Amino acid sequence: MAEQIRVAIAGHGNLGRGVEAAIAKNPDMRLVGIYTRRSPEHLKPRDAVTPVHAMSALPDHTDRIDVLILCGGSKDDLPRQGPELAALFNTVDSFDTHARIPEYFTAVDAPARANRRTALISAGWDPGMFSINRIVGEALLPDGATYTFWGDGLSQGHSDAVRRVPGVAGAVQYTRPVKEAVDRVRSASRPTLTTREKHRRECFVVLEEGADAEQVHNAIVTMPHYFDEYDTTVNFISAEDLARDHQAMVHGGFVIRSGNTSKENAQVIEYGLKLGSNPEFTASVLVAYARAVHRLNAMGQYGAMTVFDVAPGLLSPKSPAQLRAEQL
Amino acid sequence: MAEQIRVAIAGHGNLGRGVEAAIAKNPDMRLVGIYTRRSPEHLKPRDAVTPVHAMSALPDHTDRIDVLILCGGSKDDLPRQGPELAALFNTVDSFDTHARIPEYFTAVDAPARANRRTALISAGWDPGMFSINRIVGEALLPDGATYTFWGDGLSQGHSDAVRRVPGVAGAVQYTRPVKEAVDRVRSASRPTLTTREKHRRECFVVLEEGADAEQVHNAIVTMPHYFDEYDTTVNFISAEDLARDHQAMVHGGFVIRSGNTSKENAQVIEYGLKLGSNPEFTASVLVAYARAVHRLNAMGQYGAMTVFDVAPGLLSPKSPAQLRAEQL
Ligand SMILES: NC(=O)c1ccc[n+]([C@@H]2O[C@H](COP(=O)([O-])OP(=O)(O)OC[C@H]3O[C@@H](n4cnc5c(N)ncnc54)[C@H](OP(=O)(O)O)[C@@H]3O)[C@@H](O)[C@H]2O)c1
Ligand SMILES: NC(=O)c1ccc[n+]([C@@H]2O[C@H](COP(=O)([O-])OP(=O)(O)OC[C@H]3O[C@@H](n4cnc5c(N)ncnc54)[C@H](OP(=O)(O)O)[C@@H]3O)[C@@H](O)[C@H]2O)c1
Repeated sequence: MAEQIRVAIAGHGNLGRGVEAAIAKNPDMRLVGIYTRRSPEHLKPRDAVTPVHAMSALPDHTDRIDVLILCGGSKDDLPRQGPELAALFNTVDSFDTHARIPEYFTAVDAPARANRRTALISAGWDPGMFSINRIVGEALLPDGATYTFWGDGLSQGHSDAVRRVPGVAGAVQYTRPVKEAVDRVRSASRPTLTTREKHRRECFVVLEEGADAEQVHNAIVTMPHYFDEYDTTVNFISAEDLARDHQAMVHGGFVIRSGNTSKENAQVIEYGLKLGSNPEFTASVLVAYARAVHRLNAMGQYGAMTVFDVAPGLLSPKSPAQLRAEQL
Repeated sequence: MAEQIRVAIAGHGNLGRGVEAAIAKNPDMRLVGIYTRRSPEHLKPRDAVTPVHAMSALPDHTDRIDVLILCGGSKDDLPRQGPELAALFNTVDSFDTHARIPEYFTAVDAPARANRRTALISAGWDPGMFSINRIVGEALLPDGATYTFWGDGLSQGHSDAVRRVPGVAGAVQYTRPVKEAVDRVRSASRPTLTTREKHRRECFVVLEEGADAEQVHNAIVTMPHYFDEYDTTVNFISAEDLARDHQAMVHGGFVIRSGNTSKENAQVIEYGLKLGSNPEFTASVLVAYARAVHRLNAMGQYGAMTVFDVAPGLLSPKSPAQLRAEQL
């Protein structure tokens, strides 16, 4: 085997742990270190031999790392870490604040370009694989309509919102596509769908002692932005049930493009994900793009990029000739 | 709008007619001509104003055409036309003899490279979009298994085989995925499936006068390679029913990758197509790749390529900045 790609992780949350697991599945890569803002000695890597360093050690470690995978949060961490670290390393991140992508792209592009680094932003599944399927679907069927459905999936933001309701001791929220809407979309009828028609929301809530169930229920289903535009079910369960049945970070969904290639003929393209673990799958995407970033940098392609700029063959450990012979 | 891409068609069968329809859906392109080996005056383009030329006129038309889409058959036409025309034009084709792709790639690569042309081979849906999903699925979930199911779809080769059976006046054959197999694959259990377990075959047959139905049935279901490894149903119908209900060239199928990102967590990726017209969808893919080929050639990327080498953003008429802002 050729030399392994030396990968490191910046930030050790759900995604960072997922990246550890993903690198272990890719023999052409090696995890050379985990970097954290917390005290390194308190972090427990999946594999005890993996070195853990302070984030502040990164500037001294530029010659040890081929690609640094940024696993910080999109809200507060990446807007600072992304531009800073793209000056020092080839990077991959999963920045997912859709509305701020252009500004984040620009902020990362300049330092990366100036230092001949390659920085792949906003990889993962949405943004990421779903985005690719949105633009390719549209390119293949220009006379058509695109639909993205999410779920069945645990939504972190909505679960947090429910937990902030007075009287709630614990909660999770699942986003579920509405089956009738999905069937209509799959039939190529290009329906116009409201927010309420596309998804419903289901909450599993543990009440605090003495809390009023009716009041909690109403506070949830009428919550502006989060729930008022949806049909929401609230189930009250015990703390034991919550701990036993609702820990998995399941998610997924599908992107459907339907369109006509002529008056007579309709076509439907569907890309779907059923994820047992949202952060582990997202991490697997980041790791495959780390391989591509390593190659793109070697080819002299510097600056910020997105998944739209990466040819699929670059994600695979196999050579172009092998891919053509075996998998085309 | 910027200057339109000038596209031409070489070969006017099902696929060639599909390309005509697809170009009409893409305002950034213009169909400048159809080239055929038959007498041009007998061809009927979809739009009567489209010029039809003899194939032999192509060498004199190199300055009129940005991308030539090769719509000849994979068996006899493309192996000759591909290398010859790649010396004169940027080309896109749908060469689908999987086993001969490496040799075809080499045959096209040399003349294209020598003449600074870009030649995209084996685009379409399989090879094509399905191939992309096979290699990306494997790259994202290296510890996993990939399954390709075809159908429900009309198979040209199998329909032809049935038509050659003595006593058959007309016939079509549909390939259908076996639902139980698909469900097992979707459950992430990574089953090992035999040919018989994955697909079944269904024939609709019009008998010649006086033909023996029992004999025809047996000749079909025991036919080596084509039917003997499958469970096959044979339905006898009237010539009117065949003409009325079985003209659409429907096809499709799905590529499923299931895998584990850790011992605990399984993930499933599924890409599916439901095609009202196989040639029109294939043609739409070729036309989107014609856009990419035009851009790649302008970027100085010469020689043979496959869909594995093309970044998704190049398929879209939108600019990278617009794609990032609106669709990532
Ligand atoms: N594109 C997609 O499809 C997609 C999908 C899923 C997630 N994402 C993105 O991924 C980002 C990260 O997600 P995540 O689930 O990994 O977030 P997280 O668990 O909250 O981790 C974020 C950061 O917080 C710090 N942290 C983690 N655990 C901590 C603890 N116990 N105490 C204090 N700090 C802790 C870590 O940095 P330090 O080690 O430096 O302290 C870590 O990098 C999200 O913001 C989201 O934007 C994208
Ligand atoms: N990659 C994929 O997913 C995919 C999917 C579907 C098909 N394909 C490929 O596409 C290829 C073309 O398919 P197709 O359905 O367009 O084949 P087709 O209809 O048989 O046409 C093939 C060629 O035959 C000639 N022709 C057409 N009609 C004719 C007629 N009535 N009499 C004499 N010659 C005629 C045309 O060349 P002239 O005009 O020069 O005579 C045409 O270019 C197939 O071989 C297959 O390999 C690929």
